[in-house]
Amino acid sequence: MKINEIDNLIQILSRLPGLGPRSARRAALHLIKNKDTSLEPLRLTIDKVAKEIETCSNCGNLDTVNPCSICKNVKRHQGTICVVEEVADLWALERSETYSGLYHVLGGVLSPLDGVGPDELFLDKLLRRADDRTVHEIILATSATVDGKTTAHYIKELLENSEVNVTALAHGIPVGGELDYLDDGTLTAAIKDRRGF
Amino acid sequence: MKINEIDNLIQILSRLPGLGPRSARRAALHLIKNKDTSLEPLRLTIDKVAKEIETCSNCGNLDTVNPCSICKNVKRHQGTICVVEEVADLWALERSETYSGLYHVLGGVLSPLDGVGPDELFLDKLLRRADDRTVHEIILATSATVDGKTTAHYIKELLENSEVNVTALAHGIPVGGELDYLDDGTLTAAIKDRRGF
Repeated sequence: MKINEIDNLIQILSRLPGLGPRSARRAALHLIKNKDTSLEPLRLTIDKVAKEIETCSNCGNLDTVNPCSICKNVKRHQGTICVVEEVADLWALERSETYSGLYHVLGGVLSPLDGVGPDELFLDKLLRRADDRTVHEIILATSATVDGKTTAHYIKELLENSEVNVTALAHGIPVGGELDYLDDGTLTAAIKDRRGF
Repeated sequence: MKINEIDNLIQILSRLPGLGPRSARRAALHLIKNKDTSLEPLRLTIDKVAKEIETCSNCGNLDTVNPCSICKNVKRHQGTICVVEEVADLWALERSETYSGLYHVLGGVLSPLDGVGPDELFLDKLLRRADDRTVHEIILATSATVDGKTTAHYIKELLENSEVNVTALAHGIPVGGELDYLDDGTLTAAIKDRRGF
């Protein structure tokens, strides 16, 4: 018979994205069997995260400071705001090291089926940021899904009266991608947007 | 730029079995975004697990009490001990609800390549338990791998002078298994151990 605390731990772990009941059991056992090297560091880190991490009131990023270290970094290009769905997307762009402007994290996409309307997204602040004279470009970097596209179009409409330049990420063949495995939509976009070589 | 605490959390999560860097990032974000429903319960449960869970000094099981609730349960069959590699195997057998005897968790298998010798396993105690007059059967339920088999043979030799009856789990076709997909070893065992129908 298993006991409650371990069961609890397994249940909580199994609700994390990417973990099912079986992997949650393995993870829980690993944690318990490695108290000093695994359970204790996790406990301390979670304590710190719970206390210290907050959402940036300017851009929606997560950080120990508010405004976040990206918003506060004067070396970053202050004229460009890249609009992303989630903090994970911001992290992905940061990892690619190709963008040095500011961000705006929506906290999701418009999705009527899931009950996510404009009020659930971090949009008001984006419009206020767009009115700032220093901002001259807003890059819509939402996902290339139906909901992501809808959200991008909605934001473009909201920004119609603003003087800011609205752009979007390029579509095309992923680097390393094989034509044979690509969907028709991507191929169509790649041909339409072809360029000199 | 991500900050240290989140990075730490991601790194610790990514060391759990079944989680890679990407799923660890998703899990960490999920935890941070759902502080009340996910991060806080995990924090509390880990606190409790760290304080309360200990290894049963009799059988090697994990529980909040020592001896564990299985060893203490007088309704369980006291004459049979099922030897398993890990606590996860004990849990699997308990879930199947087919076994009502006692357990002995080895804490691994003999594996010269990984530097696991007899001293690293919980064997001394097993031999002492086997000497108990009430114990009349020891079921070797190690994995059907090379290391698992080796460990089972080693334990059988250790128990040679004891009066206990040593048995092992049956080999054969897994329930729901298709012949076409089974390996030769399993098929050979299934034919050798065929029985009246």
